[in-house]
Amino acid sequence: MTGSINVIGYALATLGPAIGVAMIFSSAINGIARQPEARGALMGAVYIGFAVVEALAILGFVLAFVIR
Amino acid sequence: MTGSINVIGYALATLGPAIGVAMIFSSAINGIARQPEARGALMGAVYIGFAVVEALAILGFVLAFVIR
Amino acid sequence: MTGSINVIGYALATLGPAIGVAMIFSSAINGIARQPEARGALMGAVYIGFAVVEALAILGFVLAFVIR
Amino acid sequence: MTGSINVIGYALATLGPAIGVAMIFSSAINGIARQPEARGALMGAVYIGFAVVEALAILGFVLAFVIR
Amino acid sequence: MTGSINVIGYALATLGPAIGVAMIFSSAINGIARQPEARGALMGAVYIGFAVVEALAILGFVLAFVIR
Repeated sequence: MTGSINVIGYALATLGPAIGVAMIFSSAINGIARQPEARGALMGAVYIGFAVVEALAILGFVLAFVIR
Repeated sequence: MTGSINVIGYALATLGPAIGVAMIFSSAINGIARQPEARGALMGAVYIGFAVVEALAILGFVLAFVIR
Repeated sequence: MTGSINVIGYALATLGPAIGVAMIFSSAINGIARQPEARGALMGAVYIGFAVVEALAILGFVLAFVIR
Repeated sequence: MTGSINVIGYALATLGPAIGVAMIFSSAINGIARQPEARGALMGAVYIGFAVVEALAILGFVLAFVIR
Repeated sequence: MTGSINVIGYALATLGPAIGVAMIFSSAINGIARQPEARGALMGAVYIGFAVVEALAILGFVLAFVIR
């Protein structure tokens, strides 16, 4: 039984953001499919939501190196 | 392998409340998008639900310091 | 690292019943909102479902004291 | 801290099948409620799906006794 | 308490892909049931999505043998 528990930590840190970002883009795709002309307005909200959710996983990546 | 298992405890304690509060606000946003004039009546139920769900995570934060 | 693993056992035992009972009542609330006159017929099924699901968590509470 | 980790293994092995079989029967109940005359055709697919999903949990029960 | 933690690693690596591939095919089946003539266009997207999601579980299978 070898390996660092930090890898599990990063793995768990990606679980929520991965599903969350997928939910955001999934809603965006559904929205564009329903109203293609709303694409511009939709993508603005998508990029803001994507950035703040993705950041949580990136922080987990950083934390896996910093804390030992 | 260092660190306190209390941090994992708090992390698990935020899992449910985070998804729960998000479900409440998500329903509120959907409801307001469908019937904007029902905003006042909706937000009353939202704040009550938000408070009792968020409290569970705050208790987890307290517990992480109290129990060692 | 102190504490009993039985507390984690009870915690996991409440995870399913809590979500399950919430799904039952959520469906009941949606059903009553759609057809308020069906309230009596709905609540009969709700209480049966609630009892058999809640019992699983209560059994977990008992088990946490009995098995050591 | 006593007990066998095989019990946790069986518990995890029931998690997916339990939710899966419930999804199958839930879809069947919704389908019958919508088109009661399609009951025969529906139940054929239900029993096939139920059998292959339930088998995974039964295998977990067997495995808990076989592997030590 | 015997066994390799790599088996748990592979098991967790199949959790997401299994649900993900099921979501892809479930959407495809719903789509074909609604518009049977769109079958060709649908299955193209299905096979691309299936391949990239399934690959993650296959990589977990490889990793369970490679890393010790």
